[in-house]
Amino acid sequence: MTDRNTSSSDDAIEETRDFAPRFNADGLIPVVTTDQATGAVLMLAYMNAEALEKTIASGDAWYWSRSRQALWRKGETSGHTQKVQELRTDCDQDTLQLIVDQSGPACHTNRPSCFYRRITPANGGMLLELISDD
Amino acid sequence: MTDRNTSSSDDAIEETRDFAPRFNADGLIPVVTTDQATGAVLMLAYMNAEALEKTIASGDAWYWSRSRQALWRKGETSGHTQKVQELRTDCDQDTLQLIVDQSGPACHTNRPSCFYRRITPANGGMLLELISDD
Repeated sequence: MTDRNTSSSDDAIEETRDFAPRFNADGLIPVVTTDQATGAVLMLAYMNAEALEKTIASGDAWYWSRSRQALWRKGETSGHTQKVQELRTDCDQDTLQLIVDQSGPACHTNRPSCFYRRITPANGGMLLELISDD
Repeated sequence: MTDRNTSSSDDAIEETRDFAPRFNADGLIPVVTTDQATGAVLMLAYMNAEALEKTIASGDAWYWSRSRQALWRKGETSGHTQKVQELRTDCDQDTLQLIVDQSGPACHTNRPSCFYRRITPANGGMLLELISDD
């Protein structure tokens, strides 16, 4: 979030040294996972408090699967694990950035990143186009 | 999302050329905004359908401010605009990536990115530490 109307409590959360992640009404926080080697955005996923604890404690990326309603260690079946290199929070602490050492493709479609299609004008509307440089 | 249990409908949304963004129950979709010049993650924000339309039509980044419950053209008061260079969707089309030419700092705290603090172990717990290389 980058809203400009700040209050003293906003300033506090923006400048504090206290890590106080703000989970949403479902108890989840979005996580932007990026590749330490390339800087690329690999995926967006969600953590609940337990996934965050496990990630910090283990050094492996754990998420909460909204579709399966279950904790999920990235790569637990595929082997495409994510080793945590750094964990960041944003200004208002309602989003995390996880910088990882990605083993194999991050996306379950076996692409390096989940963001493999760009939106492009075509036929008077918008179509998706595969990004060839991934 | 990178869940592994796919169905034919999952495959369809993952391989289709149709742009069909999946807004959440609040009518919003998260957007990871990155800097074309540096590749850095600048911020995570949200768009509703109108913000997405305005972004595509104008080439300027428009978002939905959850705190102000209003459409918001990034930089409309600060001047720190974002010119769209590319728009991507992820495998299941519930997240967007917006690659921009960022004018000035992206964060309202006047930092280049909203992700200016890392979580680091200290005093037996976790504390936030300013990232000096930003």
